[in-house]
Amino acid sequence: MKPISFLTDYGLADEFVGVCKGVLHQLAPGAPIVDITHLIAPHDVRAGSLALVRSVQYLPDGIVLAIVDPGVGTARKAIAVEAGAMIFVGPDNGLLAPAVAMLGGARSAVALTNDEFHLAAPGATFAGRDIFAPVAARLSSGTPLVEFGDAIDPVTLTPGIVPLSRIEDDYSAIHGEALWVDHFGNVQLNIGPEEVSGFGEILSLTWGGKTRTVRVLTAYGEIKGGEVGLVIDSYGLLSVCVDRSSASRELGLGAGSAVTIAPAL
Amino acid sequence: MKPISFLTDYGLADEFVGVCKGVLHQLAPGAPIVDITHLIAPHDVRAGSLALVRSVQYLPDGIVLAIVDPGVGTARKAIAVEAGAMIFVGPDNGLLAPAVAMLGGARSAVALTNDEFHLAAPGATFAGRDIFAPVAARLSSGTPLVEFGDAIDPVTLTPGIVPLSRIEDDYSAIHGEALWVDHFGNVQLNIGPEEVSGFGEILSLTWGGKTRTVRVLTAYGEIKGGEVGLVIDSYGLLSVCVDRSSASRELGLGAGSAVTIAPAL
Amino acid sequence: MKPISFLTDYGLADEFVGVCKGVLHQLAPGAPIVDITHLIAPHDVRAGSLALVRSVQYLPDGIVLAIVDPGVGTARKAIAVEAGAMIFVGPDNGLLAPAVAMLGGARSAVALTNDEFHLAAPGATFAGRDIFAPVAARLSSGTPLVEFGDAIDPVTLTPGIVPLSRIEDDYSAIHGEALWVDHFGNVQLNIGPEEVSGFGEILSLTWGGKTRTVRVLTAYGEIKGGEVGLVIDSYGLLSVCVDRSSASRELGLGAGSAVTIAPAL
Repeated sequence: MKPISFLTDYGLADEFVGVCKGVLHQLAPGAPIVDITHLIAPHDVRAGSLALVRSVQYLPDGIVLAIVDPGVGTARKAIAVEAGAMIFVGPDNGLLAPAVAMLGGARSAVALTNDEFHLAAPGATFAGRDIFAPVAARLSSGTPLVEFGDAIDPVTLTPGIVPLSRIEDDYSAIHGEALWVDHFGNVQLNIGPEEVSGFGEILSLTWGGKTRTVRVLTAYGEIKGGEVGLVIDSYGLLSVCVDRSSASRELGLGAGSAVTIAPAL
Repeated sequence: MKPISFLTDYGLADEFVGVCKGVLHQLAPGAPIVDITHLIAPHDVRAGSLALVRSVQYLPDGIVLAIVDPGVGTARKAIAVEAGAMIFVGPDNGLLAPAVAMLGGARSAVALTNDEFHLAAPGATFAGRDIFAPVAARLSSGTPLVEFGDAIDPVTLTPGIVPLSRIEDDYSAIHGEALWVDHFGNVQLNIGPEEVSGFGEILSLTWGGKTRTVRVLTAYGEIKGGEVGLVIDSYGLLSVCVDRSSASRELGLGAGSAVTIAPAL
Repeated sequence: MKPISFLTDYGLADEFVGVCKGVLHQLAPGAPIVDITHLIAPHDVRAGSLALVRSVQYLPDGIVLAIVDPGVGTARKAIAVEAGAMIFVGPDNGLLAPAVAMLGGARSAVALTNDEFHLAAPGATFAGRDIFAPVAARLSSGTPLVEFGDAIDPVTLTPGIVPLSRIEDDYSAIHGEALWVDHFGNVQLNIGPEEVSGFGEILSLTWGGKTRTVRVLTAYGEIKGGEVGLVIDSYGLLSVCVDRSSASRELGLGAGSAVTIAPAL
């Protein structure tokens, strides 16, 4: 049985995740299950796709079962996609795309149209239980991808949306945005340290009409009391951080906030 | 080792669940553990029993360890109950009853009076760690049910309370209540689509002095902006839902809220 | 593969815990993982150390991976410490110390200076993924402790801070503090029932300028409506409790609150 890594927006309060795991255990007994997270904000496909792309290189080779699926039960496709040493299972709404791209792109893909692998259900609202988990379990136990439904051309899959930063033509500033606020309130930007290395040691960070002087640092512990730091985080991106508190809350930055970094005047 | 499915109101912030799993691992090494949920509201026996009955048919055959136990340490019995292909372990307070009934009722039951299977402890407040988990582990590894204590007649077990809907004699309306608000804010009713199928396509939903016109739908994605839908959920019951938001919050519906469905005038 | 018990302040919303487990699965396939909790308050080393000391005797023999690490990436040491039948892996900031002491103290310790066991990373902020999890996995699979880095004298490890209670010289009262507020709002004190047994049956509990008459009880269910009870909890300490509600919220008690118990006048 191949390992199954598992990400959803199901939350942990209900039995949704547990029921999917019950199905996985029944159809793929002994398959290791690695929970990535189940607390993606409800329906937030972008946040789910970013958590997946941050995780994927650390997951064991096998199956990635990922579900953030506001269109469940509608015409959006349910898919399985082969990329690198992984087979991704989930909705075709862009959730899987950035992680698939990071692994070199899709080698093949199918729409999960063969309902002999699905569970019969009295309602169509819980595709995780009735479609995605049963398919992931069968893939874990070795059923070939082609058996799950009609092959689809990977180029027709819904693309992901990962925002790019933009440098001023005169290299006077770089414009980016906040990708993610983590549990500690650190605010990851879509800007890497190499993109600001020509700006000198003292930088200005501007967002929402406010500007602060900042430095690029390599550890949270280097931030002085009252200082705002741009810490090179574990993904090699700049994160806006403050000393042992939430930069998001203290500075009013959230996922999607626009920021500009420039040399300090 | 048989799989152990595990539900509690212990929350995830403390080490309660982890300590029970430590005990399970020590006494039943290698037994698969399926977490159903540990975020049942504290002491909410009804909510726990409903989560269990929604889950049970999807759990692997084996042991179900379920603990929502405001009476821990008092005269309420600790029990193990055999039903279907499951042995349930938990307090005798109605928590297990609906799931046991769904599996055809109890074939046998014991009170967990044999304390050679319990852990010695300096206090009586953590029966999960000291009584229920050790018993579940030993059941997983094959110790016969009869060894855990005195047999009790299943008809003496505390019954569960699942509210029934009520149809007006002239079939002019059906009265029910909200069973459950899920993570997305969808509000499951104790009314199925077959019970309102004679009312026509356009229905009225009344609760707390408010009335809205509603339709029965089969997917969340079919709900239009501003509309309230009665979506046939994955358990075959009607759920009150709104478009990509929380119906519970927007409409002021919670578990236990009374509702009436009738033909729209 | 030895079991790995796992405690952090990473929260469950991000992929931090999942990524560490992905690393564990890759480097120690099949090693059982027992989550103690991942919801220690961010950076709260004391709370983490207390959760660990409450748990450790119930965890399976093996590896304990514990991370609450505000100093990540700075000069604080990363360590592995052998005590009892456990090897603890985490930061040298007092987090591990009380659990190590409970198991009889450290037999040996190393600083995790040998980076051939670490993952290369673009930033130094996620030692759980890049240092602690890889080391824990290798320890699980049998690599000897000495290979992970320079031996250090256990007496040089950062000590933990567990507050002690203090009895008045004339035995008229005992002064202590709240160690922990659990999920149910019960407030564990650093005072055991044996320390107040000479005070008689009716006691006074004083905190923050308020005083209530209290009794020592053995079950939550013995607390009457409106009463405050001192329940002997599952660790053998007194917990301030109220009837099926949160004593912390109702009485205004939190971790660190000072309390005094005396004979009632």
